[in-house]
Amino acid sequence: MATPPSRPALRARYDARRRGLIDQAARVFAQKGYHATSIDDLIAATGMTRGGLYHYTESKRELLLGVLQELMEPLLRQAGEILEVPAPAERQLRKLMVVWLQHVATHIDHMIVFDQERRTLQHEPDWDQLRADRDRFEQILATLLERGAEEGSFAIVDPQIALMMVLGAVNYMPQWLRSSGRLTPAEIAERYCDLLLDGIRAR
Amino acid sequence: MATPPSRPALRARYDARRRGLIDQAARVFAQKGYHATSIDDLIAATGMTRGGLYHYTESKRELLLGVLQELMEPLLRQAGEILEVPAPAERQLRKLMVVWLQHVATHIDHMIVFDQERRTLQHEPDWDQLRADRDRFEQILATLLERGAEEGSFAIVDPQIALMMVLGAVNYMPQWLRSSGRLTPAEIAERYCDLLLDGIRAR
Repeated sequence: MATPPSRPALRARYDARRRGLIDQAARVFAQKGYHATSIDDLIAATGMTRGGLYHYTESKRELLLGVLQELMEPLLRQAGEILEVPAPAERQLRKLMVVWLQHVATHIDHMIVFDQERRTLQHEPDWDQLRADRDRFEQILATLLERGAEEGSFAIVDPQIALMMVLGAVNYMPQWLRSSGRLTPAEIAERYCDLLLDGIRAR
Repeated sequence: MATPPSRPALRARYDARRRGLIDQAARVFAQKGYHATSIDDLIAATGMTRGGLYHYTESKRELLLGVLQELMEPLLRQAGEILEVPAPAERQLRKLMVVWLQHVATHIDHMIVFDQERRTLQHEPDWDQLRADRDRFEQILATLLERGAEEGSFAIVDPQIALMMVLGAVNYMPQWLRSSGRLTPAEIAERYCDLLLDGIRAR
């Protein structure tokens, strides 16, 4: 990151502008592809000057890291808050799915960039924190499924397969989710949970 | 496509070589990205001469179309064969999932290219057949779910959400499927079907 100002009022404004820049970068990367995007494309999309842009980021690569952090960090924070409140596993799973899908719905561009740059994420030497965050989120999901089994409310034959099914279902959403769709993200989350819990077999 | 020979024996050899070229193109596109791949990259990867390559394809774009066709056509043909044999919806769904996941497992590169080039697929004016094939496959899945409901074996609250969950789960597989994994594609298909049918709730 470029050096942010230290006075609190200036810092808050700086952070808000930087977040705005990151969101705009996410949109350009998603449309054009990260590698095909130039600094000039970002200048054109944001209306910033070159100097202004470099006041908020040190490089295109650092903006990519920012995009991926905006995707992971708020979600992980919210997941942690849900887990802190004692509740049955099903209740926590439903809350987590709602929060997750609402976050996805407001970060479709970030999701597309994440999908495009999975390989980069894997190989960048100093992105340990981001990889740890992604693993931590998967771990939270896995632990919830496991706890439901211990509590006797879930009977999961293959936890890894259940986890991959949920990750797949949510990560596919940018392909079809529309803000004008018939269901809100929270409603989709509830229906995914209903399906995951009870399946489609008539009883 | 470049013009293939008309004599049957020559045609068979031509078709086999063209398929080999398409599979190699899929690998290069998946690793490097379709747009970043040059004809020279394809020459280097295949060991073909420029003239040899243009004997089997007329352009990079035509090779991309070939990659996407290799992904859709055999799958759609097999799905059609399964539906032709009268059987309960659950049986057909399980057979379809096995065939689908086995096809995915042998076409990981093609899947990655499909994922990268979804947008292209949407906008290419003369790729109607490919779009129709994709829609037809989704339609087969949707019809199977619907028929299960009519037969009284499925109770599906929201068929569209069930469909998106299955598509998401399978389309996510290139991210985690390894040929050395603990389950075969057919076993993963059965476990996905178990989950989709019965969910994870203890009973």
